[in-house]
Amino acid sequence: MKKLFTLCLMMLSTIMIAQTNQYDDDFINQVKQLRDQALTNDLAYDITESLTTEVGARLAGTPGDAKAVAWAQEKFKALGFDRISTEPVTFKRWTRGQETAVILSPYQHQLAITALGRTLPTPADGISGEVVHFATLADLQAADKSEVSGKITFISERMERHKDGSGYGKAVGARGLTAQVTAEKGGIAAIIRSIGTDNNRTPHTGAAKYDDNIPSVPAGAISNPDADLLLNVLKRNKPVFVKVTLTSHWDGDYTSQNVIGDMLGSEKPEEYIVIGCHLDSWDLGTGAIDDASGCGITMAAAKLIKEHLGSLKRTIRVVLWANEEYGISGALAYHEAHKNELKQHILGGESDFGAGEIYALGTRVAEDALPTIETMMTLLKPLGIDYIGNQGSSGADLIPMRKAGMAVFGLRQDGTDYFDYHHTANDTLDKVDPKALAQNVAAWIVVTALAAEAEHDFGFDLTD
Amino acid sequence: MKKLFTLCLMMLSTIMIAQTNQYDDDFINQVKQLRDQALTNDLAYDITESLTTEVGARLAGTPGDAKAVAWAQEKFKALGFDRISTEPVTFKRWTRGQETAVILSPYQHQLAITALGRTLPTPADGISGEVVHFATLADLQAADKSEVSGKITFISERMERHKDGSGYGKAVGARGLTAQVTAEKGGIAAIIRSIGTDNNRTPHTGAAKYDDNIPSVPAGAISNPDADLLLNVLKRNKPVFVKVTLTSHWDGDYTSQNVIGDMLGSEKPEEYIVIGCHLDSWDLGTGAIDDASGCGITMAAAKLIKEHLGSLKRTIRVVLWANEEYGISGALAYHEAHKNELKQHILGGESDFGAGEIYALGTRVAEDALPTIETMMTLLKPLGIDYIGNQGSSGADLIPMRKAGMAVFGLRQDGTDYFDYHHTANDTLDKVDPKALAQNVAAWIVVTALAAEAEHDFGFDLTD
Repeated sequence: MKKLFTLCLMMLSTIMIAQTNQYDDDFINQVKQLRDQALTNDLAYDITESLTTEVGARLAGTPGDAKAVAWAQEKFKALGFDRISTEPVTFKRWTRGQETAVILSPYQHQLAITALGRTLPTPADGISGEVVHFATLADLQAADKSEVSGKITFISERMERHKDGSGYGKAVGARGLTAQVTAEKGGIAAIIRSIGTDNNRTPHTGAAKYDDNIPSVPAGAISNPDADLLLNVLKRNKPVFVKVTLTSHWDGDYTSQNVIGDMLGSEKPEEYIVIGCHLDSWDLGTGAIDDASGCGITMAAAKLIKEHLGSLKRTIRVVLWANEEYGISGALAYHEAHKNELKQHILGGESDFGAGEIYALGTRVAEDALPTIETMMTLLKPLGIDYIGNQGSSGADLIPMRKAGMAVFGLRQDGTDYFDYHHTANDTLDKVDPKALAQNVAAWIVVTALAAEAEHDFGFDLTD
Repeated sequence: MKKLFTLCLMMLSTIMIAQTNQYDDDFINQVKQLRDQALTNDLAYDITESLTTEVGARLAGTPGDAKAVAWAQEKFKALGFDRISTEPVTFKRWTRGQETAVILSPYQHQLAITALGRTLPTPADGISGEVVHFATLADLQAADKSEVSGKITFISERMERHKDGSGYGKAVGARGLTAQVTAEKGGIAAIIRSIGTDNNRTPHTGAAKYDDNIPSVPAGAISNPDADLLLNVLKRNKPVFVKVTLTSHWDGDYTSQNVIGDMLGSEKPEEYIVIGCHLDSWDLGTGAIDDASGCGITMAAAKLIKEHLGSLKRTIRVVLWANEEYGISGALAYHEAHKNELKQHILGGESDFGAGEIYALGTRVAEDALPTIETMMTLLKPLGIDYIGNQGSSGADLIPMRKAGMAVFGLRQDGTDYFDYHHTANDTLDKVDPKALAQNVAAWIVVTALAAEAEHDFGFDLTD
């Protein structure tokens, strides 16, 4: 009975808000106009070009990181943001070193390898050993220590290609765990097939799990063609020996910055619609689709809203997060720094899935905010965007705030090709389609503007 | 009048041969049957897999070269060739060294670079200088010495993508000449955009012209994304300085081998239908499409003909040519070694354009052999292959023999993607489609078998 009553109340409240039509027609028309103008606006591409050209690779803790922080402040200023601030983010620095691998016998080959983030170094002159092959991480986990002891493990599972990137979650466990599982079983180093969908000799880096108290070994990913080659060599049923040299290492503490640009709200400046991207990148490419494009999209959206719609009720906060890649350090630091004002964070979203066209919106908001999401959807539909429900999530940097209760949204991008380039030397500007990027901006404008101008909030203390 | 008489004679002879139906029906039916069986036969793929896995990179003059020569003899033996021989091929060896490039200012970037074959080394610690940009080789050639002197040239022309690979000829001049033209104008090093159609950070190597008596400079190709980046940096209109380190160098004489497998003719064993591939490869990948696949196709064609059709009238000679890549040294040596029996070389073709499906046959044969080509075409048509005329050519290794007068044919492969991988680290087995490879074998069987069994020859002393 009580359940039914609650349900009725919810429905009633939903209908009431829906019927209220909280936005005036002028505002909606202006948003529509701006959305359509954004489709031919190149600001997001220009920002992406600027970050990849004037900074380029910016692994957290490297000189590129500091350059990116300076770039971001200047760019926010040039774009006319009302308030620009930085907040310190301190983390243990991991530094890439030399990375080579060769098959020593029975046939000699160079392998294209890259170290997995946060793994331990080999000696400077490498580690040699016999390869023991496992089709999957589960197979390695199930193996007897005697199979692995003294050897170099190789996991050959290949990531599947899907529009929503769902192959990633299935395959990435090998990257996260192989160093620790190999160590636990007495292995001396670990090789995995790159977590990627391409056939290029550009191996995919990415973070591995690391804990000072859990044994680990040096670990690297070889490119898909190299993994195929190693499998073909192994097929000959002769012992296969490889030598791996990976001198990446932990390198003391480093303090980077979250860089924050605010377009201040006219009525509730202390309430934030938080959008953004991560400012750091892996270091093999110039971090164009991961995640300069996300910075371009969200910085452009905020700038175009201010320019064409003026100040909205709430503050639009663009956060360029520090060190997403190996620790979401910026996200954790922000949550810590803002823990006394968490509820002022009304709705959040991060653009961190490349530069493909957006095809769906997912949300995680209070039920009684759903009519506003419906209004957003009427403006998103013409962009080819569908609603996929209220169990959505957002980028990795929103995790701490979402866990604390913040409402979030995710504008899902077509990720069909994303994992061809993700975390590789191939993550460069040519992979960004200006037209798809502009469609992203149009969508972010709709969601951000309507959230900033909404009469109500989007709920807090939302269950996960 | 004399012309008309000749024309009439030619037509008459053509009609006579065409009407003669030189092949008996049984033979034609057997060839058709074998052609169709070949479409599902994986021998060519297995050979390609074997060469790329058990040998891999095999730049002329490297240990891989010697391994490939040994592999080839063993493979011919395993395939049951009647006679296996090697013929020495001596050339000046060029050895790849270290290769790195960085943009020093105004923004720091690593560039993916590879040395152009036969170019001179920089000092071990590199050469630094200001970049001077030219859109094309012609622009560099037209430049005043004062523009180039003391600088590092950069040619940014991009190769066009076409099915027939015709973009290559248009763009490759920059690779051939930039080192010499840059030197002539006082430049200190040369960078070109890779001669390739991809967007991968895998630069394309390939030979540059070299002459001991013509000044030259160190020269390298950067990948397409790197060329785009350098252009974007140059757009800022600030002086751009780069540092290039390329320690590749000339390294004395080396003797490799042409490896020859003969399936001996039953009636005219001293007459040769010459098919084959080049055995060497560039060293960045495993030389799968350039040219292990050509070896797989032609070795498999000869083997399957012998196995299913028995010995034909003429000898089928499969030549695996040495050092095609930086000198067609094997081709020149063969021509020299066989100059007293050139006319025993009845028809020749090389498979050296990757592993794409064949879509056309071109020939360069005597007019009165055209009816035989027509018969070939009736068997090739079902494979989706059209005839494109009698002004055809073949692979680079046939040039010396063709110039000496030998009749040649070219089975044209779809090269739409070929220059994505050509001469890069990405030239690996995964780029070979087993189905397309089998279609190649079917086509090579038709042309080779009908040529070996033909009553007549295909002419000699053909004008170029």
